Amino acid sequence: MSDLNSVVAALREFAAARDWRQFHDPKNLAMALSSEVGELCALYRWVRTEDADAFSHDPKNRPRIEDELADVTIFLLLLADRTGIDLEEVALKKIAQNAARYPVEKSRGVSERPEPG
Amino acid sequence: MSDLNSVVAALREFAAARDWRQFHDPKNLAMALSSEVGELCALYRWVRTEDADAFSHDPKNRPRIEDELADVTIFLLLLADRTGIDLEEVALKKIAQNAARYPVEKSRGVSERPEPG
Amino acid sequence: MSDLNSVVAALREFAAARDWRQFHDPKNLAMALSSEVGELCALYRWVRTEDADAFSHDPKNRPRIEDELADVTIFLLLLADRTGIDLEEVALKKIAQNAARYPVEKSRGVSERPEPG
Amino acid sequence: MSDLNSVVAALREFAAARDWRQFHDPKNLAMALSSEVGELCALYRWVRTEDADAFSHDPKNRPRIEDELADVTIFLLLLADRTGIDLEEVALKKIAQNAARYPVEKSRGVSERPEPG
Repeated sequence: MSDLNSVVAALREFAAARDWRQFHDPKNLAMALSSEVGELCALYRWVRTEDADAFSHDPKNRPRIEDELADVTIFLLLLADRTGIDLEEVALKKIAQNAARYPVEKSRGVSERPEPG
Repeated sequence: MSDLNSVVAALREFAAARDWRQFHDPKNLAMALSSEVGELCALYRWVRTEDADAFSHDPKNRPRIEDELADVTIFLLLLADRTGIDLEEVALKKIAQNAARYPVEKSRGVSERPEPG
Repeated sequence: MSDLNSVVAALREFAAARDWRQFHDPKNLAMALSSEVGELCALYRWVRTEDADAFSHDPKNRPRIEDELADVTIFLLLLADRTGIDLEEVALKKIAQNAARYPVEKSRGVSERPEPG
Repeated sequence: MSDLNSVVAALREFAAARDWRQFHDPKNLAMALSSEVGELCALYRWVRTEDADAFSHDPKNRPRIEDELADVTIFLLLLADRTGIDLEEVALKKIAQNAARYPVEKSRGVSERPEPG
């Protein structure tokens, strides 16, 4: 499922073969990530909230959504690899912090700026 | 490293406990992803290209970078989980497409709009 | 209303006084713009489509929305000024192109990827 | 230059003729803005900091940069118009706040997280 080590390995090989690591400094990768997330936003911008799930499962739209999620994944992994950040570790740490910040009893069903998770 | 299944499991539990799945439709999650990538861009915006690696490894900046990468990871996984998209599968497929699109001999060291990877 | 020449003049003076033009190259400004638009997206991410107008007019939310639109305006103007691009001219040209691309009779009420305007 | 009232007028007419105001709620417009800024970031992502000005003035790149700035302008104006926010007023107010926040003597030449302006 989300065992992304195989993707990291493929990305390293891909970039090395093309001598593209010179372009993959963290600033450039953050900017590339922003551009790919922008393409994802382009897909959903005119979709109404209540239609967003159906839109995502429509075979007409699915290839483009998969394609944009692939690009976001690629640049996130390149950035994590370049900076030496372990995404599993930092994400689990953040979820634990969020659990303390948004106690279950006070947060249930309340969207008022619940940030992540 | 990047075995993110444990993160997906933690996110499901976190959101279920707070009844937050109602807010996590794909449109909202794409927008949340955009806001987190924006925070990442905020960190690097005044950093010169050639300083971006050193900046990323400076202990002063590291916690914020880790925190933003965690948030991006969280929302990407929530979106993949909600839409039922397998990130490993779509990323590997995209890398294969990119390998055909950017042949090694023509792409070596050339940054002219090399899009992903 | 949207006569932004006074803003451009104020921005020039502000940046010159602080010697900040050295940071305001187009790449950095594009990245800054991305981070400010991300903050705007953060405000709206959990708001349902049909609630977005009411949310925007709620006095509780208004100062933050105004603040983010101010930041987006500031960086857009800095970028236009730095690159010497006349926003009025290029926007009017683009609207004319869009008018040809999306003929009234075929586009009325159809959101199928109507891009700008 | 940046007297954008003519653009606002053209946008109102364009959207009214196509009955597109129904899609232009503030959430959707914020998302559209994010996607256009993403396209702008795509142009600059592999450009080195020190090359960004020359890149911006290269006639090969200029049409695309103008096109993206046009799109960002269009969606910013649509959003300001929809929410009734006066961009000149809020931007000038923000610059005044920034002037207090970043005193000249302490901020001169220091990029350490100078946010806007």
